[in-house]
Amino acid sequence: MSASRLIGVGVGPGDPELVTFKAMRALGEADVIAYFAKAGNESHSRAIVAPHLRAGTTELPLLYPITTELPSCSKGYRDALCGFYDGAAASIAAHLQAGRIVAVICEGDPLFYGSYMHLHARLAPRFAAEIVAGVTGMSGCWSAAGMPMVQGDDVFTVLPATLSESELARRLGDADAAVVMKVGRHLPKLRRALAQSGRLPRAIYVERGTTAEEKMILLTAKPDDDAPYFAVVLVPGWNERPGAEE
Amino acid sequence: MSASRLIGVGVGPGDPELVTFKAMRALGEADVIAYFAKAGNESHSRAIVAPHLRAGTTELPLLYPITTELPSCSKGYRDALCGFYDGAAASIAAHLQAGRIVAVICEGDPLFYGSYMHLHARLAPRFAAEIVAGVTGMSGCWSAAGMPMVQGDDVFTVLPATLSESELARRLGDADAAVVMKVGRHLPKLRRALAQSGRLPRAIYVERGTTAEEKMILLTAKPDDDAPYFAVVLVPGWNERPGAEE
Repeated sequence: MSASRLIGVGVGPGDPELVTFKAMRALGEADVIAYFAKAGNESHSRAIVAPHLRAGTTELPLLYPITTELPSCSKGYRDALCGFYDGAAASIAAHLQAGRIVAVICEGDPLFYGSYMHLHARLAPRFAAEIVAGVTGMSGCWSAAGMPMVQGDDVFTVLPATLSESELARRLGDADAAVVMKVGRHLPKLRRALAQSGRLPRAIYVERGTTAEEKMILLTAKPDDDAPYFAVVLVPGWNERPGAEE
Repeated sequence: MSASRLIGVGVGPGDPELVTFKAMRALGEADVIAYFAKAGNESHSRAIVAPHLRAGTTELPLLYPITTELPSCSKGYRDALCGFYDGAAASIAAHLQAGRIVAVICEGDPLFYGSYMHLHARLAPRFAAEIVAGVTGMSGCWSAAGMPMVQGDDVFTVLPATLSESELARRLGDADAAVVMKVGRHLPKLRRALAQSGRLPRAIYVERGTTAEEKMILLTAKPDDDAPYFAVVLVPGWNERPGAEE
């Protein structure tokens, strides 16, 4: 019987072809495939690898608690999430203690803004753990846009749209290129910050890059309504000076 | 005969298993496989996909000019590189004009600090062009280190070690997590900047993450000698507070 092992498996930004051979091998070796999902919704990571799942593999959905009644910055919300991750880690630990290989499939890259880290922090000190790097969501977005992002000595930054308008403007102005995540209801504020920092004309709005539902538009042409939480805004560095060399 | 097309193909950080199915399909469709290399050295990107190359595929090595006698910030160096990229683009254009599919294979991701962008800027306005996103070198490094990098609303930045000591210290102190690239001879300066910003204790030095030559060590345990140009330093954000929740 194989030695037990936890594997955090990046399955890329959405296009099932952007899965690596290493991820596919990990899925083939795993006794248990675990994934996060919202109750009542399909897991994005499971959908990406669905064509490749072996019949008979045990699946372990990890369903986020319903916390819509709690503000996301409240102690109640944090306690609910922390308890959820504790429980999810305990479910996986039981499989590991029984000698099984558990693969946790993750959209994008497991260690880059992924929920998997909450399991890794709880389990890696006690069990053998391995990470399979994945193509990040942001790489998927700028590749779909065909937009050169950073070159040479460019400074690059990733910002959450949850920052204040002044912080966003300061940080956008302080980097050559940026990706802003978690756009959602912050779009009007982000647009003002981009304008203040002089970056608005080159900003590109992307939803679900590399998937069948991909949407992409210059931010200047996009109204401020209905941006989903997972939408990103790309602020390319190098593309404005295609003749420039390192 | 297939319509001509330029494909920038990310082949990942070094481990041949971290190549995607989409990259492999692009290699299978291509009439010509192009790659950058230093004269006299093996191309890293070609080495990654070597096991998968079809017999009979035309290979087009793009050999960087020997510029060791020129300082890299000099006009002579820039002119030599610019002329080199012009010539490389012209070689590829000739194949595209003849109706061929040309795949340019790139370590990591094609649009993230890659030489491919110099070709894309020259050719994409004239020919059909497509990008296959890849696993970046930095994802490969932090995955090999098993080091959670960023979570929740963390601010992340990528910095070239070529920045001044004070700029490095300021930017390291202004982000939750960072990757510093092009370490090479800048290591002593980078170490001082990390110490000033309070980030030295959690800095990890990585060479050639995910390859057989991988080296990884806490920066505090690494002497200042012999860091290669392509070495990176990871400054994880989230790992120091594993109990923290979003």
